[in-house]
Amino acid sequence: MNGVMDAIKGRRSVRKYKQQQISDGELSQIVAAGQLAPSGHNRQTTHFVVVQQAAVLEELRRVVREAFAEMEQPADPHDMKSTAIRLSKKGKYNFMYNPPTFIIAANKRGYGNAMADTALALGNMMLLAQEIGIGSCWINQLRWLCDDEKVMRAVEKLGIGRDEVVCGGLALGYSDQPERPATVIQGNRVDYIK
Amino acid sequence: MNGVMDAIKGRRSVRKYKQQQISDGELSQIVAAGQLAPSGHNRQTTHFVVVQQAAVLEELRRVVREAFAEMEQPADPHDMKSTAIRLSKKGKYNFMYNPPTFIIAANKRGYGNAMADTALALGNMMLLAQEIGIGSCWINQLRWLCDDEKVMRAVEKLGIGRDEVVCGGLALGYSDQPERPATVIQGNRVDYIK
Repeated sequence: MNGVMDAIKGRRSVRKYKQQQISDGELSQIVAAGQLAPSGHNRQTTHFVVVQQAAVLEELRRVVREAFAEMEQPADPHDMKSTAIRLSKKGKYNFMYNPPTFIIAANKRGYGNAMADTALALGNMMLLAQEIGIGSCWINQLRWLCDDEKVMRAVEKLGIGRDEVVCGGLALGYSDQPERPATVIQGNRVDYIK
Repeated sequence: MNGVMDAIKGRRSVRKYKQQQISDGELSQIVAAGQLAPSGHNRQTTHFVVVQQAAVLEELRRVVREAFAEMEQPADPHDMKSTAIRLSKKGKYNFMYNPPTFIIAANKRGYGNAMADTALALGNMMLLAQEIGIGSCWINQLRWLCDDEKVMRAVEKLGIGRDEVVCGGLALGYSDQPERPATVIQGNRVDYIK
């Protein structure tokens, strides 16, 4: 183990995965990392659904594609949903890069700390995964569609209640993509008032 | 260095700080950890303002206290703002536990990934701080007040534009609180679909 900064610097968003499943031991470490993230007032309301069943992953892909296919293209060309909608209308959209494991992270609907708490949990998971040699990628799409009735029904079948809202997702698996250069910091401005 | 899980397990929210300032070397490692967090489409729009000037910190405390003092108590008794409002009305509220360093993290106003990206950055910072022996605590209050005109003016003086919104804050310094037991996971439910 080389420490937190090595995990931070080494992490890349992995968009191509080997089909070999990660081990239960690896998964449980990643899940624990997420559960141990701080939460506002220590309320611990993040809810993780770990999906490894291929048929369920395929059903999620289909529901997401159908939901995007019904949406209008956003006026803003920089809107992140643009590509998803365009490809879905052609029946060609796959929102999660075929990872063998996909974690859906939900939180209480209407709760002010829902997004922050969930992001801290997924952040912990990404760093722990990186340290033990597992690739990951934050997946936004179910969050974008969290008010879509068909998507709500699909995640409800997986145990996410109507009082909850999907705040993020995480693809997990062994990376099958070429090594990529380190992230270059071009934004993320810092001002000092000393 | 003991790795990511040790940092995750060892981290506590620190609410009492020594007044000794952290070193510039420590600060720059923590800042880099935040800058290197993943962001949606790698847009890197998180904006950090590192405040170490005592008079500026005091001014922020005053503005926050005055903003809360003018607010009505929320109907929901579980609303996290409750205590802040009650104490501020008595002139007794200090929102940031007197850390020697306070980082304000802002992002583009109205940007869908603002909260997620900022939280991932602050999460990285908390873990890196923990690893190098520095305590931290997520501070929500400026976010709660991000639409308050006086608060907006106060953070504008620190370089946060009107096109930005405060998404979180981070208190940083050497811990002066007794060691606390490890976090017990009582929530953060996990379901497996294998």
